[in-house]
Amino acid sequence: MAYDNPQKVRELIRRGELPRPTCGLAPGYTQANLVILPKEFTFDFFLFCQRNPKPCPILEVLEPGQYEPVLTAPAADIRVDASLYRVYQDGELVSEERDITGYWNTEMVTFLLGCSFTFENALIKAGISLRHVEEGKNVAMYVTNIPTVPAGIFSGPMVVSMRPIPAAKVVRSVQITSRFPMVHGAPVHIGDPEKIGIIDLAKPDYGDAVATKDDEVPVFWACGVTPQTVVLRSKPPLMITHSPGHMFITDLRDEDLSIL
Amino acid sequence: MAYDNPQKVRELIRRGELPRPTCGLAPGYTQANLVILPKEFTFDFFLFCQRNPKPCPILEVLEPGQYEPVLTAPAADIRVDASLYRVYQDGELVSEERDITGYWNTEMVTFLLGCSFTFENALIKAGISLRHVEEGKNVAMYVTNIPTVPAGIFSGPMVVSMRPIPAAKVVRSVQITSRFPMVHGAPVHIGDPEKIGIIDLAKPDYGDAVATKDDEVPVFWACGVTPQTVVLRSKPPLMITHSPGHMFITDLRDEDLSIL
Repeated sequence: MAYDNPQKVRELIRRGELPRPTCGLAPGYTQANLVILPKEFTFDFFLFCQRNPKPCPILEVLEPGQYEPVLTAPAADIRVDASLYRVYQDGELVSEERDITGYWNTEMVTFLLGCSFTFENALIKAGISLRHVEEGKNVAMYVTNIPTVPAGIFSGPMVVSMRPIPAAKVVRSVQITSRFPMVHGAPVHIGDPEKIGIIDLAKPDYGDAVATKDDEVPVFWACGVTPQTVVLRSKPPLMITHSPGHMFITDLRDEDLSIL
Repeated sequence: MAYDNPQKVRELIRRGELPRPTCGLAPGYTQANLVILPKEFTFDFFLFCQRNPKPCPILEVLEPGQYEPVLTAPAADIRVDASLYRVYQDGELVSEERDITGYWNTEMVTFLLGCSFTFENALIKAGISLRHVEEGKNVAMYVTNIPTVPAGIFSGPMVVSMRPIPAAKVVRSVQITSRFPMVHGAPVHIGDPEKIGIIDLAKPDYGDAVATKDDEVPVFWACGVTPQTVVLRSKPPLMITHSPGHMFITDLRDEDLSIL
């Protein structure tokens, strides 16, 4: 199957033949969040990610102007190999693009950040089903009262994603996701949403609500939406990201990112 | 005991009352390597550390000019709280200092990197004795043929430290050190030194040789000397580090750095 191979999937995406979210493509290979910023903002953003590794797990940082992720996807081109991009100017979304070559210059620095697909696959393989996947929804995300550690111009609250987990499997879900510290890792909170400033689980700030049943516990993981929201608060003249769900597919195997 | 408390130990060091290596001080608290560079070199160095986390495990990066490690040792002063510093100009060691305030300016960026004391303590607690500790020697370090991943102006071979481990405890030593990915983590090589370009274990490039007995296996870990040697190859106009063995003592507990 062509869809099993990350190079082939990127080639199809580049040719415009897979104009859809990347969930389920190249299974077992790591998908990444993209954040592309002008060089002047990148030292502060690098610091922010280093200080907040759970919401901002760095997979690779490219040198200024570089668009080939030599370490995680050699021969790929970061400007055309995600199926959809978002362009922000002065903190506002100005367009969605299939190709960002026109915005590129030698000062652009690309950050590839880990994505929750990696640990979700590990949970599913371990027999812990995920309601939003079953229901074909986007995961529910919430702005919390947990502060991130500020860095330079960047600061703001942590965004988390929530998955209802059967009470009997909560410990196992901590163990499984702890093996993947490069992709959000262990949960940041288990149980009572109010303790982290979430008033109503039925009203997520991003994504879609799902039910939490009586025998389930809401479990919260640091979310890769955090760095984007924090950057937008600082209104950089230009920021480019992938569009939600349209991740960049790397050649890393999810298991390469596990420890133990 | 005053020597059990990291704040008190730093206070004694600052007053010049502990003019000796920090091994054994504030047990259970994390000691750090220091690398201080002018701002113009720091993005490349940050990239280098991110791409080479085993030899260059970042504990904290301070913003330009900042000398208080707010996250790992609040109220400390990075310029006076290590007992001895080395100052390099254009790649050459020019002096050892008790206080680097005179070299400080608002463009200096400090990197605190993890140190092998953390995982050595974990090995010793698990009943795996370390010959260089028993014999009061510095650990043996070797330049290998393992390339680091280059970043900007920085490149060069990985330096490793070697500890002879009883054959029956090699697996356990991998497990124990895997728990500490922030402080060099699991070994990079087990056994035959020639496979990583080491010709003669009796002739280390840094530190002191120790014997490897018949029932022991040489086990190699990525070493924090790597970033210093790589930076010196690029001859920056100014670089300041701690002096070997005279580490900066943080308020982090070693166990804070363990995963699982």
